[in-house]
Amino acid sequence: MPTSGEPPTRSRSPADNAQLALLLEVAGTPKPGNVDRHRDLEDLRFEHFLASTVGVRPGLEMAANGAAIGPAFERAVEGMATQRGGNTQFGCLLLLVPLVVASRRDLAPPVVESVVEETTVADAACFYRAFEQVDVYVTAPPDDLEPLDVRRGSEAIPDLEARGLTLFDILEKSVPGDDVAREWTTGFERTFDAATKLAALPEDRPLADRGAEVFLSLLADRPDTLIEKRHGKAAAAKVTREATALLESDALWSDRDAVERFADDLVERGHNPGTTADITAAALFVALERGAVDV
Amino acid sequence: MPTSGEPPTRSRSPADNAQLALLLEVAGTPKPGNVDRHRDLEDLRFEHFLASTVGVRPGLEMAANGAAIGPAFERAVEGMATQRGGNTQFGCLLLLVPLVVASRRDLAPPVVESVVEETTVADAACFYRAFEQVDVYVTAPPDDLEPLDVRRGSEAIPDLEARGLTLFDILEKSVPGDDVAREWTTGFERTFDAATKLAALPEDRPLADRGAEVFLSLLADRPDTLIEKRHGKAAAAKVTREATALLESDALWSDRDAVERFADDLVERGHNPGTTADITAAALFVALERGAVDV
Repeated sequence: MPTSGEPPTRSRSPADNAQLALLLEVAGTPKPGNVDRHRDLEDLRFEHFLASTVGVRPGLEMAANGAAIGPAFERAVEGMATQRGGNTQFGCLLLLVPLVVASRRDLAPPVVESVVEETTVADAACFYRAFEQVDVYVTAPPDDLEPLDVRRGSEAIPDLEARGLTLFDILEKSVPGDDVAREWTTGFERTFDAATKLAALPEDRPLADRGAEVFLSLLADRPDTLIEKRHGKAAAAKVTREATALLESDALWSDRDAVERFADDLVERGHNPGTTADITAAALFVALERGAVDV
Repeated sequence: MPTSGEPPTRSRSPADNAQLALLLEVAGTPKPGNVDRHRDLEDLRFEHFLASTVGVRPGLEMAANGAAIGPAFERAVEGMATQRGGNTQFGCLLLLVPLVVASRRDLAPPVVESVVEETTVADAACFYRAFEQVDVYVTAPPDDLEPLDVRRGSEAIPDLEARGLTLFDILEKSVPGDDVAREWTTGFERTFDAATKLAALPEDRPLADRGAEVFLSLLADRPDTLIEKRHGKAAAAKVTREATALLESDALWSDRDAVERFADDLVERGHNPGTTADITAAALFVALERGAVDV
């Protein structure tokens, strides 16, 4: 029996770990500005994330079984769209799918780097089609890239093909101002760093809440690019300064009420650090898949 | 896009709905005495249920794909045991697996009735083996049934076979004092009734919390048999009287604090209405699968 300390007879597959990472990410609390175990947003509730996590499973399994990144991602987003809360996990999936693919070889930065660099124009087409499934918040591209605006969905595919752009190329172009895309160009640097940090935290607290602790450190580390897109650089910088102040005063341990107030305050301001949540979920996956943490 | 009111392009499979029912059940709050969105028990945390829900997936898929009830149940329990909290969903699975099998034909009481009556001695053997995976709370059987004590696990299988007992026979013998087994002998009466009740609740609240409301009405309806086994009939009857008083005063709407206090109080007393949670999860599955509720 697992309670006796003996290892369970079955272990989790990469698709299992990806699904579990998504569940643990949303359950971790306090996770300022985001849906968590104790907070819903107005139209986006905890249960939308639960339903989404069920829906994305087939796409994650495709990735685990050797599908290309584009089709696996598109299928995952299609499954995410079976729930009625809108965009729950688009960014998480853009990180998790290549990580799951990499786990077939070795879940290490150079491998993930190759995996994303090997993406094709067909993968990019899938990515554009995925935008038709769900309302993802994006800003207008510069004028010269207007034909590649993701909001055009599949209509942009002929332009993609004419220019021969792969999914990696597309994300590389999005890097300034999109820290999910940035992971694709840095060997998933913040993801792996956060996984290491997660593994070093004491095991006496729920893993989901250790995820929330790493979330706060990521939020203090760099301004959240979803907040930047929606509310501007000044707003995102302010949130990061506030998170830094809480971290520096060790508030999670010495003044938890201050962190809870910050969480409520961000929800009220509508400042939702979605990118930071995406990287937290990816870090949970890496730590689970490497066996560095367990539930 | 699902937010616009258009139906999603994909719908949920029976295995999806079963997994989602398990997640919604544990997330519903206040669910007095049980782990819920706001409460952990000492050694059994919310995240153990999340991990368990991921682990049971292959067993649920077996059921959805036409496997016999015994092997599907055994595989689900094996997957449940990949997490370290112990027994999370044994009883839920004993209800969900036949319901998922029935959904291949028609999810109606007479069909589920046939499905469970068609179980075999081999299914019973799987059930006994499942007890080796996880520590399930059971009481000693009467002396004449000692050879069939589930705590003997696979050692009891020769005795099962000698007597030619099917899984239905075994559960029928457990009925007095086990309301999960009772569902097997009544065409899942309380499950279907609770699903109807769930579908009738106003849709303005999270579905998980509507599940919690149905949980409270089930708890008021009959004493919880897990509390009976652990703490005796008087303790279970007291909990039912308390739940009835809250329901009769419409406390969920007029005095929610009273329900929250009751929830905290049951956790403190260690009175855990596990059977009631099992039936709630099964009812959520039926309502989801019939399209009577949605997320």
